[in-house]
Amino acid sequence: MEDVSYNQIIQIIHSAQYIIADQYFVSLYPEIQESLVEKSVFYVDSPEESKCMEVYAKALSFLLDEEITRADEILVVGGGATSDLGGFVASTILRGVSWNIIPTTLLSMVDAAIGGKVGINTKSGKNLIGNFHEPRSIYYNYDFLNTLSRVEFNSGLGEVTKYAVLEKEIFDLVIGDTKLSEIVHVCADYKSKIVEADLRESGTRKLLNLGHSFGHAFEKTMCIPHGEAVVLGLRLILSLYAPQVSQDYAKILNKLKLEINFEKCFFKDFCVHLKKDKKTLPGAIIELVVPQQVGNVNLVKRNIEEVISEMGDHESYETYFY
Amino acid sequence: MEDVSYNQIIQIIHSAQYIIADQYFVSLYPEIQESLVEKSVFYVDSPEESKCMEVYAKALSFLLDEEITRADEILVVGGGATSDLGGFVASTILRGVSWNIIPTTLLSMVDAAIGGKVGINTKSGKNLIGNFHEPRSIYYNYDFLNTLSRVEFNSGLGEVTKYAVLEKEIFDLVIGDTKLSEIVHVCADYKSKIVEADLRESGTRKLLNLGHSFGHAFEKTMCIPHGEAVVLGLRLILSLYAPQVSQDYAKILNKLKLEINFEKCFFKDFCVHLKKDKKTLPGAIIELVVPQQVGNVNLVKRNIEEVISEMGDHESYETYFY
Repeated sequence: MEDVSYNQIIQIIHSAQYIIADQYFVSLYPEIQESLVEKSVFYVDSPEESKCMEVYAKALSFLLDEEITRADEILVVGGGATSDLGGFVASTILRGVSWNIIPTTLLSMVDAAIGGKVGINTKSGKNLIGNFHEPRSIYYNYDFLNTLSRVEFNSGLGEVTKYAVLEKEIFDLVIGDTKLSEIVHVCADYKSKIVEADLRESGTRKLLNLGHSFGHAFEKTMCIPHGEAVVLGLRLILSLYAPQVSQDYAKILNKLKLEINFEKCFFKDFCVHLKKDKKTLPGAIIELVVPQQVGNVNLVKRNIEEVISEMGDHESYETYFY
Repeated sequence: MEDVSYNQIIQIIHSAQYIIADQYFVSLYPEIQESLVEKSVFYVDSPEESKCMEVYAKALSFLLDEEITRADEILVVGGGATSDLGGFVASTILRGVSWNIIPTTLLSMVDAAIGGKVGINTKSGKNLIGNFHEPRSIYYNYDFLNTLSRVEFNSGLGEVTKYAVLEKEIFDLVIGDTKLSEIVHVCADYKSKIVEADLRESGTRKLLNLGHSFGHAFEKTMCIPHGEAVVLGLRLILSLYAPQVSQDYAKILNKLKLEINFEKCFFKDFCVHLKKDKKTLPGAIIELVVPQQVGNVNLVKRNIEEVISEMGDHESYETYFY
């Protein structure tokens, strides 16, 4: 993790040779566009749709044709979907080359770029094919946040709300009118530390899944941005198992000016996607992250059918489902 | 590494759920065929041609459709190409599940099954896409060697000759009329130890590449089996840089009754493939493994162009090239 200026970003790109870059992002910054001339650049168009087997194979062919060697590095410039794809390419080309990221969205700065989880989607679900491959360096330039759409920005804030529930220090920063760049820095740092202790997600890293089991199911059912889905997932888990934390969570959303407008979701579809979550254990068990209070969360193993019937039984969840 | 009986093989298959198996091999063993009924089996037809992006994607889709979870294991039954493909699938599905191998060829027993190198081929070359993912268990049943074709058998013996040059103990066993199963066991053990010390091939594991830089180029140029190509590669490196070892190598080939009948190879094509080797370092440097004597080998960095001109200068290499 390194905070860098815009000029330094240009220099970093200048000294790279193999680059995987979000085409739309690059088009917004003429100096970056210029610095890419004469490089071996694989451009990613519509990153979320490009996070698939077909584009993965194309990127590999492109880099092999450009004669990448094991001693080379790949620089990825883009948001979470671009770095998931680019990192998976880096992790498997020539059995793995080093890579670096310039994250360009809030979501990637606080989450996707950190921790080495890389991969692609399939028709069966998100991130079902992938690998663990940590980037060598992540270069932070907060100016990029200025060109994000409202939807992209909110999507990143969704993950920030998760950290604010997980860690009291982050909650206090968020509540205390702290500058966004500082909050981003602390969130990224928090995730780095957890990942360092548990790269392969056998223990504490699982806590980062707060809001995500339900969140992924919302995301799949309603095709909404990831961060918004996480907020819905978090709200639902609090309503179900930790109503005492709901008020603090409302404070976080309020402070970050994060309003999620959502349509009701078809309950049966939601349940189908919930059951398909890749973290489901044999015997239809899911591990839910349940807060006791801000800064104190537990991992709870539950049978999916029980969880579903608990949601079906309560009238209050009609806010979410029809 | 575990030596098991044929009955134990049947039991191992019986207790597995997700299996990737060489279709032709299975067709030879009715009891195995029977034990696969009602399992989720992805059959690999023509493994070497199936070691490609298209079949990799199909295998992933199949296993996801069969609802594999992270707690499941994949059992691979087949030779080196099947385990390279199956291992790559295991390493990337749900970001990696555990896997086990029943190697069914001599080549896979002494080499491919050991050490976690998994991957697929592309039009640019062999194993250019892949990963490191060690199997949990490798189950050895030497009866399977009886159904190998002469070509397959020789291909495995090619790797055995490499070990006999690398390690004096193996040389002595080979020269000393030792039972093949024992030689296989010692070779596999030798490779396991080297891999354990250096999984990602940053040091001593590179020595296992003896004969392979030239070997891969022969293999690509002439489309001959891997083991035969390794023998040619080894012979060529000895003629070029270690003629004092050639006689010992001839003894090994003689003892193993390994006669390689080969046609001359077009020198320019050979050079093209040599330059494309994935282990080439920047500046067109290759690391050659050069024996001083049996049991004593060195890693030597050489400029590819120099190596090529050394081959081109010597009349004796006309045995190999036109």
